[in-house]
Amino acid sequence: AGVISTQPEWQDEEYFGNYGNLKLHLEMLSDKPRTEAYMNAIVKNADKLRDKVILDVGCGTGILSMLCVKHARPKHVYAVEASDIAEYTQKAVEKNGMASKITVLNDFAENAKIEDDVDLIISEWMGTMLLFEMMIESVLSMRDRFMKPELTIWPSSASLYLVPCTAQVHFNRKLEFWDCQYGLDFSSFKTLAKEDLLSKPYHDYELPCGDCLAKGQSVLQLDMKTLTIQSLENIVCQFEFVIDQGDTMHGFCTWFEVEFCPLSEDMDTVILNTGPDNQLTHWKQNLFLLDSPVRVNAGDVISGTLTISRNPEYRRHLRAFFDFKVIPGLQESKIVDPSSVQKMFYVWR
Amino acid sequence: AGVISTQPEWQDEEYFGNYGNLKLHLEMLSDKPRTEAYMNAIVKNADKLRDKVILDVGCGTGILSMLCVKHARPKHVYAVEASDIAEYTQKAVEKNGMASKITVLNDFAENAKIEDDVDLIISEWMGTMLLFEMMIESVLSMRDRFMKPELTIWPSSASLYLVPCTAQVHFNRKLEFWDCQYGLDFSSFKTLAKEDLLSKPYHDYELPCGDCLAKGQSVLQLDMKTLTIQSLENIVCQFEFVIDQGDTMHGFCTWFEVEFCPLSEDMDTVILNTGPDNQLTHWKQNLFLLDSPVRVNAGDVISGTLTISRNPEYRRHLRAFFDFKVIPGLQESKIVDPSSVQKMFYVWR
Ligand SMILES: [Ca+2]
Ligand SMILES: [Ca+2]
Repeated sequence: AGVISTQPEWQDEEYFGNYGNLKLHLEMLSDKPRTEAYMNAIVKNADKLRDKVILDVGCGTGILSMLCVKHARPKHVYAVEASDIAEYTQKAVEKNGMASKITVLNDFAENAKIEDDVDLIISEWMGTMLLFEMMIESVLSMRDRFMKPELTIWPSSASLYLVPCTAQVHFNRKLEFWDCQYGLDFSSFKTLAKEDLLSKPYHDYELPCGDCLAKGQSVLQLDMKTLTIQSLENIVCQFEFVIDQGDTMHGFCTWFEVEFCPLSEDMDTVILNTGPDNQLTHWKQNLFLLDSPVRVNAGDVISGTLTISRNPEYRRHLRAFFDFKVIPGLQESKIVDPSSVQKMFYVWR
Repeated sequence: AGVISTQPEWQDEEYFGNYGNLKLHLEMLSDKPRTEAYMNAIVKNADKLRDKVILDVGCGTGILSMLCVKHARPKHVYAVEASDIAEYTQKAVEKNGMASKITVLNDFAENAKIEDDVDLIISEWMGTMLLFEMMIESVLSMRDRFMKPELTIWPSSASLYLVPCTAQVHFNRKLEFWDCQYGLDFSSFKTLAKEDLLSKPYHDYELPCGDCLAKGQSVLQLDMKTLTIQSLENIVCQFEFVIDQGDTMHGFCTWFEVEFCPLSEDMDTVILNTGPDNQLTHWKQNLFLLDSPVRVNAGDVISGTLTISRNPEYRRHLRAFFDFKVIPGLQESKIVDPSSVQKMFYVWR
């Protein structure tokens, strides 16, 4: 017992310092679908990477840079990392006998001193709802700095996926505890638990495939070659789903897919998809719960927009605004003008 | 990917507000050995609680107060809770039809307006290493305020237990990840991971019984009737363990036991023990790792002191200073004056 204000007992973020990041890097390294997608792209295109200059933006532990040197024979790799972990990345590069091939730069990408001509920019910048943390901005700024027709950017494209879903199991699991404990009614706390559940996206969600009420749609496609950072200020994503099974719609789920374009015509595109049909990654899926569930029937159309905007002040944070209507299918065509549902989510400011 | 400074991505403590506490209360309510110990004490002594006035210090969700009303027939219960959750506790009391029996006071115990004479103080104040958060101070101040010879305090006594232990599995699990991933040597990050592992107590530890190198000892006994808050400023706990199996000693583990004295002579004492031989509670056990493991043999004596001091500034925080020697058993009696091992831990400041 005993609760000090609203802070977790051990305030890890203050205490861990550098180690806080290390735990995140461990999580990312342990994420096999993630790391193996990058590795596959490197291995499959190894011949074309020979003697090329590679820039690894936000290299973390240096895994991507070292995989390049291990599996291909690049001329040189510049591994840029702004956090203090770069000191240990440098040591890892040395331990792996790659110090002559990899230059670790402990700096912001934008400030990194690189005199070379860059052929490939590789980066793992994706976050919650694809864009959260907006690390993509550093990748695009490096693209512009080293721009040339033959420049490759990995991933070469990215898509955000959306689907309307039911989430009854999650809903119950989060709230039913408070119904009764030791023969006592604790439902007054359910109000508080429900407020919390609905107040923000649930970023750590594992969407069961069977909870999708329609086929997931790509609502945003980013081409890393042509994308401008300005275009990400306010993104309006259109969607129109045909419900394929009647159920209670609790909200929407998002995930993303990125592609690694092949460097020669005979090679396949490597794909990393974090959706519910794929092996779970550390990104999981992201759940956006409506304030009130909506009953939907097979054939109904969920039509509307998801507007993603950057927070004008906290530039790494996003807002997700859903605005949609449920247009009844044939059996209820009497409703001519259904009312729209709107909800704003902060991710996380 | 993407790491914003050293803070967790979602900064729950800032975001959750009230709900942060609710999650802790859910954890405490879900802890059956904890809640059932209190319930057993109430149920077994129900006859003696009849028409008594009860004070619940730091009532949280109100579980202990409501269990008193449900299972005994007290005259009245005063449930004091400083956090905002008290608003919902009041509603829970009403929902359970106990509003005439329980007065919820949203205040610090020290400021709570109670005109009644109190017969029983009940509180769940125990934390990591028994004393962390020092909520015991509020209980003792209520004891002094309502002091009379017949006043009962539940728990009535508390003991801190200590044992030397091996922790090879934990050690390996925390560090071996960095040896090799994807055929690459990440051991430079192991240094960082090890620094973290050794720098503070691991409060969320599940001590396997077989890892104890001697029998656990009670090194501190608190009698809630006579204990003074001043005596907790700097507590010197003596210990002397005889090693019963040769192994690598990685450090010490602590846990605690509290007792609920019976209110009549024919009743048993109810005990809540959070040690490794008992059902796991939300307190788990607490591990204190030495900087260098020590090889110990059966018959060796681990002799020394654990000094627990309150942080002079952050009054809810503790320091744990271990100072001990390994005195060889008969087979190595040649070492006359073994050197002492000393290590300071911050819990957590
Ligand atoms: Ca606690
Ligand atoms: Ca991330």
